Amino acid sequence: MPSDRIVIVGGVACGPKAASRARRRNPGVEIVIVERGPYLSYAGCGLPYFIGGSVGEIKDLWTTQYAVERNVAFFKDTKDVNVLLRTEATGIDRKNKIVHLKNLETGEASRIEYGKLVLATGGSPNRPPIEGLHLERVFCLHSPSDALAIRDLIEKDEVDCAAIIGGGSIGLEAVESFFAHAVDAVILEREDQILPGLVDADLAAYVAGELLGLGVACYTSETVLRVEGDEKGKAAKVVTNRREVAGDMVLLAAGVRPNVELARDAGLEIGPTGALAVDDRLRTSDPSIFAGGDCVECTHLVSRKKVFAPLGSTANKHGRMIGDNLTGGDETFSGILGTAILKSLKLNVARTGLTTKQAREAGFDTLETLTPSLDKAHYSPGGKPFLLKLVVDRKSERVLGAQAAGPGDLAKRIDVLATHITCGGTLKELSDLDLAYAPPFSTAVDPVAHAANHTRNRLNGLVQSVTAGELLNRLRSDDNFILLDVRQPKEVEKNKIEDRRLKHVSLLDLRREMAKAPKDVEIVCVCQTGPRSYEACMTLKGMGLGKVSFLEGGMRVWPFLGTE
Amino acid sequence: MPSDRIVIVGGVACGPKAASRARRRNPGVEIVIVERGPYLSYAGCGLPYFIGGSVGEIKDLWTTQYAVERNVAFFKDTKDVNVLLRTEATGIDRKNKIVHLKNLETGEASRIEYGKLVLATGGSPNRPPIEGLHLERVFCLHSPSDALAIRDLIEKDEVDCAAIIGGGSIGLEAVESFFAHAVDAVILEREDQILPGLVDADLAAYVAGELLGLGVACYTSETVLRVEGDEKGKAAKVVTNRREVAGDMVLLAAGVRPNVELARDAGLEIGPTGALAVDDRLRTSDPSIFAGGDCVECTHLVSRKKVFAPLGSTANKHGRMIGDNLTGGDETFSGILGTAILKSLKLNVARTGLTTKQAREAGFDTLETLTPSLDKAHYSPGGKPFLLKLVVDRKSERVLGAQAAGPGDLAKRIDVLATHITCGGTLKELSDLDLAYAPPFSTAVDPVAHAANHTRNRLNGLVQSVTAGELLNRLRSDDNFILLDVRQPKEVEKNKIEDRRLKHVSLLDLRREMAKAPKDVEIVCVCQTGPRSYEACMTLKGMGLGKVSFLEGGMRVWPFLGTE
Repeated sequence: MPSDRIVIVGGVACGPKAASRARRRNPGVEIVIVERGPYLSYAGCGLPYFIGGSVGEIKDLWTTQYAVERNVAFFKDTKDVNVLLRTEATGIDRKNKIVHLKNLETGEASRIEYGKLVLATGGSPNRPPIEGLHLERVFCLHSPSDALAIRDLIEKDEVDCAAIIGGGSIGLEAVESFFAHAVDAVILEREDQILPGLVDADLAAYVAGELLGLGVACYTSETVLRVEGDEKGKAAKVVTNRREVAGDMVLLAAGVRPNVELARDAGLEIGPTGALAVDDRLRTSDPSIFAGGDCVECTHLVSRKKVFAPLGSTANKHGRMIGDNLTGGDETFSGILGTAILKSLKLNVARTGLTTKQAREAGFDTLETLTPSLDKAHYSPGGKPFLLKLVVDRKSERVLGAQAAGPGDLAKRIDVLATHITCGGTLKELSDLDLAYAPPFSTAVDPVAHAANHTRNRLNGLVQSVTAGELLNRLRSDDNFILLDVRQPKEVEKNKIEDRRLKHVSLLDLRREMAKAPKDVEIVCVCQTGPRSYEACMTLKGMGLGKVSFLEGGMRVWPFLGTE
Repeated sequence: MPSDRIVIVGGVACGPKAASRARRRNPGVEIVIVERGPYLSYAGCGLPYFIGGSVGEIKDLWTTQYAVERNVAFFKDTKDVNVLLRTEATGIDRKNKIVHLKNLETGEASRIEYGKLVLATGGSPNRPPIEGLHLERVFCLHSPSDALAIRDLIEKDEVDCAAIIGGGSIGLEAVESFFAHAVDAVILEREDQILPGLVDADLAAYVAGELLGLGVACYTSETVLRVEGDEKGKAAKVVTNRREVAGDMVLLAAGVRPNVELARDAGLEIGPTGALAVDDRLRTSDPSIFAGGDCVECTHLVSRKKVFAPLGSTANKHGRMIGDNLTGGDETFSGILGTAILKSLKLNVARTGLTTKQAREAGFDTLETLTPSLDKAHYSPGGKPFLLKLVVDRKSERVLGAQAAGPGDLAKRIDVLATHITCGGTLKELSDLDLAYAPPFSTAVDPVAHAANHTRNRLNGLVQSVTAGELLNRLRSDDNFILLDVRQPKEVEKNKIEDRRLKHVSLLDLRREMAKAPKDVEIVCVCQTGPRSYEACMTLKGMGLGKVSFLEGGMRVWPFLGTE
């Protein structure tokens, strides 16, 4: 008689969630979780905050808000779910519905029958072909064990400078954790920008510029060749194709790959991204086997392509749906937008949907705009700025993606945009959203509406603009044009573009000062963040001057892109 | 020859926005703004913050973020827009396209021809039939003059206690402003709850309870009869149908009515709400006359009914669209959700869409749920709680409205819900949204997804719950049931429901302790905020106990509703 037992391989996020949900819907079925590691149901995304110290103890990451540890006893007592820790699933006999197990403490082999099987095997850190990764003090940041080892070393006060291999989310979050212990950090990124695949080059350059201002160098286009150790075999420096960087600790944060060996060996279908292929009910190619979390690929809701975007929030969604579908439910998972957010020192960075690069690869005819914003009314105390980038489809005027970076509250705007993009919303609809306004929370025209309005102006040809990169190229040329800074004198004193073509006329004096300008002169207007130079363009056009444009993002983005 | 001049009556939000937008699109047309008051283009929503002192000077409310005052000279110099301040529009001659004007300084009458006219006449504070409103120290809070007078009085240190007539947004915001100067405040609300029309009674009771804990009494169902003065004619106390309240200052915050006299006298159509009727292009019943902002009514996007919901954010949207449509554009305004947010002391309150009461009036078969949430991962420092209420249509499972209150970051969630409701999204779609997750920003299952999941469980009958009000009634009866508190002992020590039916069994001991309970016993589970008592229900059901439910919102909502 075949077992109706539910066996779940993987006990971090998706697995325990699937177990809990299945139990809630079916009190009688036997449920077993098999987990290779020593830890259960922990918040992996919280590991950098444990290193930084804002999470006091490692067990806080698997403790509920009611101070109860989600350990083996908890799952047994409150959920009647059996958990086998330090137990590896070594093979799946699909014909006989058996998982082969190995106790990693004793080496003992065993087997367990299943009626339905869930693969929530997660991911593992990528290990690029770099010499010296075996050295002491070279870490990944993927498990509680990693975080414990890193914090232990830092607290011994033996580390002054960390070299971080990889400028993605984990790398940038680790910077903040290290700074909390006065450990310097340098980022080495293989691609030609940090946060590749997450934001476009302009936002990445802004973030890198801000980080540099905070004392963190981000080197891009760096191929790490090797980690070199000292005489005791401890990491001491990292050698790239372009430089040597001191690092008495090295963090390997070069992304994550899905753990699919077990599934592949069992003949389950692997998708084009290299992750496990599942249908919209999160079933693998074997209808008795479900899979979710960091080991599977998802459909991108905008490009409709398969993507691999491992994330705790998605793993939780998957787990819940699998729990439903294991117990007679019929839940479908439509896909993801690749939404992501991170905090590094004073900077927030978030994104959703497609970047310009991804949208163009997916065949869209795109327009991108960069809108500097304040997160609340400028007269409200504590307001902070951020840059908001929209990527839109010129034809349908649908929003395809958004990116934001800066100290301000951009999480709210990215979540609104994620919701809007999911619905297939247009720029006009974005502009019209009835969002919550009071001075402590937003501006009367919310940043997303402001960005939508600005983008519509661009699409309709009401205004022309240049990007910082384009302006940089123009300045390197001999072209004749007026670079018109329309800010107040005090602002110009602080920073300005050093160029013979620069002319300063405050917006208030524009009509008077430019009254006699030749009608065919080309003018590029510049202000601090954009609105005033946009206003200046409109005024100059009204005065009959035809060739006017403004710098997208203003001086706030300029220095960073200008000093690349 | 008829003029093509654009005349705009009203210079606060919608009017100046319309002027600016029209100018950007048409450099040549003549534009004149006529404003009755002495102030131009100011942030009315910022007035409470000027009183509180977080906005330093009153002119900050009409100064751009680049320290330029939006005064008459600014509009003339940068926008070529003429502004007539202290000028009242006394009549409209629609046939001859003339507005009759009166200079309020000199009393001089004049007239101005228009090609197109914009009515952005705003609203005025309601003045209910209360004796003594003429007394000194009785204020409204609607204009910079009001705010200046209030702050002046408070700074003279002559005020100890303010009586606030009206428990709406302005009243609650004023509480915070007064507290900043150590001025006590009491709220007197005519309806049987504070924030009527904005949130349902349960949320209102929670907010009132929290305010009481912070030292602010909110008296509801109070009909104010008169304000009594001292011997010098200064307000001294407020007398209601139920009590006398000391108040050496009285704030009348009893809502706003639209200024439609000018339009009505000109024969323009007034809508069912008493505000000006406009079509979706913001045209009045005269195609040459547009109207927007606080003087017009809008279509509610869920109920499709006309509503009067004056708000600065809507006024700005209206102004921009009118500016477009004045200059050859064809922009339409689809409507609003009545989204609103306010901050009062440590509490944030926000809402969007329909309340349960409004949804039932609109004919929906509703389900409402109350989900306590944390705004970020519980192990992340600085996380704060809030309550999230969803109102859904049982048939379509569409979200009709949402309300939230508490110290936590609920603005983000209400904005996501406003976006979702605009798209007509269902609970399932809400649950699946790919929102931005990292521990400093959210929980792995975002509060909106958590609320959606909980509500789906309720709809599907997976779990039963009782509201605090229902439980209160049960406790007042002689019914036999077990009131099962499943919290940890320490939590129970702090606060518990005093009742003979109360039994305490920690969630961890539930299976063991309740193993011998009779299968037909009725059990109402209680925990701090809901998830554990929900879990307890599922466990008990799994053990074969049929009649189990839990307290929606847990002990967090209990004391406030219990002490009504």
